[in-house]
Amino acid sequence: MPNTFGKLFTISTWGESHGAAVGVVLDGCPPGLPLSEADIQPDLDRRRPGQSDLVTPRKEKDLVEILSGVFEGKTTGAPVSMLVRNSDARPGAYDEMREKFRPSHADFTYMAKYGLRDHRGGGRSSARETIGRVAAGAVARKILSLAGAVEIRAYVARVHDISLPPGSDDTFPSLAEVEATPVRCPHPATAAAMIRRIEEARSQGDSVGGLIRCRIRGVPAGLGEPVFDRLEADLGKAMLSLPATKGFEVGSGFAGTLLRGSEHNDAFVPKGGKVGTATNRSGGIQGGISNGEEITFTVAFKPTATIMKPQQTVDLSGAAAELTGRGRHDPCVLPRAVPIVEAMAALVLLDHWMRNAAQNKTFKF
Amino acid sequence: MPNTFGKLFTISTWGESHGAAVGVVLDGCPPGLPLSEADIQPDLDRRRPGQSDLVTPRKEKDLVEILSGVFEGKTTGAPVSMLVRNSDARPGAYDEMREKFRPSHADFTYMAKYGLRDHRGGGRSSARETIGRVAAGAVARKILSLAGAVEIRAYVARVHDISLPPGSDDTFPSLAEVEATPVRCPHPATAAAMIRRIEEARSQGDSVGGLIRCRIRGVPAGLGEPVFDRLEADLGKAMLSLPATKGFEVGSGFAGTLLRGSEHNDAFVPKGGKVGTATNRSGGIQGGISNGEEITFTVAFKPTATIMKPQQTVDLSGAAAELTGRGRHDPCVLPRAVPIVEAMAALVLLDHWMRNAAQNKTFKF
Amino acid sequence: MPNTFGKLFTISTWGESHGAAVGVVLDGCPPGLPLSEADIQPDLDRRRPGQSDLVTPRKEKDLVEILSGVFEGKTTGAPVSMLVRNSDARPGAYDEMREKFRPSHADFTYMAKYGLRDHRGGGRSSARETIGRVAAGAVARKILSLAGAVEIRAYVARVHDISLPPGSDDTFPSLAEVEATPVRCPHPATAAAMIRRIEEARSQGDSVGGLIRCRIRGVPAGLGEPVFDRLEADLGKAMLSLPATKGFEVGSGFAGTLLRGSEHNDAFVPKGGKVGTATNRSGGIQGGISNGEEITFTVAFKPTATIMKPQQTVDLSGAAAELTGRGRHDPCVLPRAVPIVEAMAALVLLDHWMRNAAQNKTFKF
Amino acid sequence: MPNTFGKLFTISTWGESHGAAVGVVLDGCPPGLPLSEADIQPDLDRRRPGQSDLVTPRKEKDLVEILSGVFEGKTTGAPVSMLVRNSDARPGAYDEMREKFRPSHADFTYMAKYGLRDHRGGGRSSARETIGRVAAGAVARKILSLAGAVEIRAYVARVHDISLPPGSDDTFPSLAEVEATPVRCPHPATAAAMIRRIEEARSQGDSVGGLIRCRIRGVPAGLGEPVFDRLEADLGKAMLSLPATKGFEVGSGFAGTLLRGSEHNDAFVPKGGKVGTATNRSGGIQGGISNGEEITFTVAFKPTATIMKPQQTVDLSGAAAELTGRGRHDPCVLPRAVPIVEAMAALVLLDHWMRNAAQNKTFKF
Repeated sequence: MPNTFGKLFTISTWGESHGAAVGVVLDGCPPGLPLSEADIQPDLDRRRPGQSDLVTPRKEKDLVEILSGVFEGKTTGAPVSMLVRNSDARPGAYDEMREKFRPSHADFTYMAKYGLRDHRGGGRSSARETIGRVAAGAVARKILSLAGAVEIRAYVARVHDISLPPGSDDTFPSLAEVEATPVRCPHPATAAAMIRRIEEARSQGDSVGGLIRCRIRGVPAGLGEPVFDRLEADLGKAMLSLPATKGFEVGSGFAGTLLRGSEHNDAFVPKGGKVGTATNRSGGIQGGISNGEEITFTVAFKPTATIMKPQQTVDLSGAAAELTGRGRHDPCVLPRAVPIVEAMAALVLLDHWMRNAAQNKTFKF
Repeated sequence: MPNTFGKLFTISTWGESHGAAVGVVLDGCPPGLPLSEADIQPDLDRRRPGQSDLVTPRKEKDLVEILSGVFEGKTTGAPVSMLVRNSDARPGAYDEMREKFRPSHADFTYMAKYGLRDHRGGGRSSARETIGRVAAGAVARKILSLAGAVEIRAYVARVHDISLPPGSDDTFPSLAEVEATPVRCPHPATAAAMIRRIEEARSQGDSVGGLIRCRIRGVPAGLGEPVFDRLEADLGKAMLSLPATKGFEVGSGFAGTLLRGSEHNDAFVPKGGKVGTATNRSGGIQGGISNGEEITFTVAFKPTATIMKPQQTVDLSGAAAELTGRGRHDPCVLPRAVPIVEAMAALVLLDHWMRNAAQNKTFKF
Repeated sequence: MPNTFGKLFTISTWGESHGAAVGVVLDGCPPGLPLSEADIQPDLDRRRPGQSDLVTPRKEKDLVEILSGVFEGKTTGAPVSMLVRNSDARPGAYDEMREKFRPSHADFTYMAKYGLRDHRGGGRSSARETIGRVAAGAVARKILSLAGAVEIRAYVARVHDISLPPGSDDTFPSLAEVEATPVRCPHPATAAAMIRRIEEARSQGDSVGGLIRCRIRGVPAGLGEPVFDRLEADLGKAMLSLPATKGFEVGSGFAGTLLRGSEHNDAFVPKGGKVGTATNRSGGIQGGISNGEEITFTVAFKPTATIMKPQQTVDLSGAAAELTGRGRHDPCVLPRAVPIVEAMAALVLLDHWMRNAAQNKTFKF
Repeated sequence: MPNTFGKLFTISTWGESHGAAVGVVLDGCPPGLPLSEADIQPDLDRRRPGQSDLVTPRKEKDLVEILSGVFEGKTTGAPVSMLVRNSDARPGAYDEMREKFRPSHADFTYMAKYGLRDHRGGGRSSARETIGRVAAGAVARKILSLAGAVEIRAYVARVHDISLPPGSDDTFPSLAEVEATPVRCPHPATAAAMIRRIEEARSQGDSVGGLIRCRIRGVPAGLGEPVFDRLEADLGKAMLSLPATKGFEVGSGFAGTLLRGSEHNDAFVPKGGKVGTATNRSGGIQGGISNGEEITFTVAFKPTATIMKPQQTVDLSGAAAELTGRGRHDPCVLPRAVPIVEAMAALVLLDHWMRNAAQNKTFKF
């Protein structure tokens, strides 16, 4: 099931950028959860196009419709099918792409894999696919917040070389701080510089990338499986399954490899009647399993592949060709990727919560 | 199945560091493959303890035994069960760990998750678990080399702050170059410096981490699934499921986020009758699917958590305690992790090869 | 994923009897298959209500809409999302069921499992769920017929005690013969008697059950996995997952247990250059794997649980109550179940075809 | 994973009849369960060869060895690897089978599927594969008995045409009653007749089949998934995955199709403060979910394919040939199949128990 994610709380997304609709089927949802479109739309609004000057002007409200699995305002345990209609499709804008492969897009590889492709707006490889992830992630977040006061907060930590100053995000940012600017960086001065950099790139027909940091608090110790399905492995997979991602690190990450063991280890300390750690280079995960500290990770997003400049490429016949940049696009995907990162994190955590419950919380011997 | 990896070519590992044995069941293996222990032992020898002064002196030959799935020298399509006996277990050396949690190990989280644990040598969380991965990976590598001349080469690119000089690994290193030194860095002068740094750390009872780079050539275009099971997502998960890993990046990785789109995009060019790219910042993967170029990724390993210095921790009762470093350990895990990284890459690639064959190569319409 | 079926060619159904719609997401579909609603609607028409006097008069055209995965008339390899709107919902007709459990329905068990339920028309337990199965099954059948001239033919073999005479179905019936009567029994005289028996049951407010036989020809030898996923095990699961089924037998079935081994064994014989069997008590499957002979199995369906007579039951408070039969229903589910049985068989066969291709047809050593 | 069964409590079996060993890896086992070989050996003893005059004289003690997942007498949550050595292998006895396909065995289909096969004693298709199932099933049974006082009792209900008299098994038989005779039929007079019939078949070099009934009490309402993974579908698949099975029926089964709905429906009645049913034609399962009543099903086993008479067949070249019966075999597989049926039922129930816990018992809203 190449389009399914999760083992117990599973989502299956479907739909193409310029098809009739995109959607998701969410299976395994616990019953009795109060749920309506109002729980889901806010996250979709955070990822939708046209929300600010920084993102693609494609005009779509991305209104979600719940088709099943909810009865009299509560989930029933049956699959929750959700759908968003594509309303601003302009397939004609993509005629050139029928014949030519866009550099660093999925055009060529889809053709190599399937022998044909829906070229309109990237078809299945479009970031519109993430609508289903965000919709399902909103359900997961609601369950997590009710089950254990879990809070998931992602934000833009760097755009191109404009980075959060060291120490500026030592405390857990509030949602309001993140949402205060369209770039979703909680440090106002940095956010302003980031916005200028993105606008500059757009004005040049170019694009920029950067980093999104995600922090999660309230996760109890014990989530994650010990070998292959380690929590960081599943979080990493979730993030690297997002379009435009090139890297993932947890806790001390790449920088931590410059420390010695005696500098890197997190000493255990008694903490309010529980076991805690004095530092958190582990990023809240040890041996693949959450230890109760804050979970922290960072995701690298490349500069948007779509640019408004002529580029060298080849056409379907394999001959060299030039591609003129056209269409609507984001000069920087990071602001809209913030709710997507949060959604994927929520899906991973809830799935592990349920897996852990099944094996380790169900029986007493 | 928390201890199973892969969808069509699947491995299930079992066993603890100081139990009777560790092993793996490999399911989905194509029939007719010539296979014997001689195909597997060389990779196990590359990961076994005691192979050089740089690694743990635990004395084990790690001889593999094939118990099923091979008849008259060929695989039958039935599960291949492989087992390695634990011969140099010294459980008494771990008595202190029964009561105290080792910092930045899995001791506390296993206890939090399961309510009890096999404390001897880390039990299931020991890197001995990777024996099964390497054994199964050797089978996958053999199939890949026969099926498509796929070559997978990992090597140590950085130890602590001793790094391969820029440009020194522009060409694909040979196995002999990698194996020329016990540190498995193909650049002799850098290798020598790395060895000194590791020996220095050991002499101080400390440890160091670093980076392993992996390069893969011969992979045809078309492997990888478009949405959740992107090739980089599955490679990332595979690597992040290894003990001590903290980060993963593909192609241009984190550094690529400092480029603009016009600098980062890989132009398509005709290449020997096929479609190729002029540069390879994509790392051989676009839209989650291999494009026929070399696949490249880097994995960050933290400094070994086990050090020979006293450390602050807590005991089972939650009280503060001090832990004295003891036992045999690697001051740097990277040299022995090289064949493990290769094994996991092989498992991911073969699994995707089979998935792609099933959906995209089986039917002609 | 409790609502997903299949390993490589997977379907995920969703929707309730009286919700907005029912649907299915089909994942793993091979690309390049010519596909439109016209390939699917005929099978849906064979299962829809109101097609004859023998079945529920619920008036729904069950028109299918393909929302994704098809571009310019061909499948792309992306998920095929299909949806059928519920147009003749009469939720008010089910008010009594909100409080009372219908005997031999899923009302009580859903409540026990989930703590709440969509009582309208059975909600998720309604046979309307099978619309998604039939739609996806139509795609599978098309692929099988193109790939290997596989023909799947189900028909009603017994209604109550009106049974096909021995020998009357020795030859493989044509689709026209099956569709010649609304009861879908290919023997005209028996069909007429079956119709009378069903009408009699309806006129008494009662219901009847019976047997559906399914025969499949054109399946090559080698499909099915050797241990748990035997072909008969997966066919059995598929059939027993249909509402109202109580039994499944393959080949000689229950009657074969009255023979001795010397009477039951199927001698191998040379057959047109291939290996065949002189008899077919194995039902085309040996050791869980197809042997190239016709695959035959029979499914037992109980009499419809919904009857128009007062029945003893309990209400939500656990108190004894009487339930008056109401609503629209089928006095015999078998005629409409024929295309559903065929759809499930097609899904099982195609999934195994793909699994076999991946492991056994992809590599040559 | 064609050799894996279960979703949360999963078993992966491996090994061939005349290889070094057979075994199983059990993953997902809850931690803290007291477990040793003494919990498992009794069930293996009930299925082992040579236990009575009725079964194959192959002399093997089938002693199980636990290799992992248990520490200081309790399960740790890690995989439990179990192994039984093959000690009485006589591969030479199977030389004729190298060249000729045994009728109604898996010899031909394995060859068709894999292109080669381990012909010795059926290799992977041997019933020795079920050793792993029984070993893992013993663990599942222990958990079920501790968790909910679940009792699973299978017994032989018919051998050839010697059947339990109507009403003779109205009460739940004790284990002692089943084990009182080597044929494992709890009705002494019938058991004696069955034994005579089996001995008669053996003396003629022939074989017989029959029915095994399984009854399960103590299962709470709510186990089973509503659509594809219905409890009867998973039980049916489990049973039809056993060698020599040809049919499965639950509750009223095939005979129930001869009743009208008004005769077949199970009226709900208040029962000791709970909801119960006045009759149990549903076999304890409604809408795929347990209803708290006794679960009952019946499995049809064909006469053993191995007989001591000359049989017509073809050889590897496709030419007609005659096969002389040789080797050790069971003239009737049913007595040894009783513990296997119980094991598979336990595996299905525990898996569903855990699935249900994860989705429906973990969160309160």
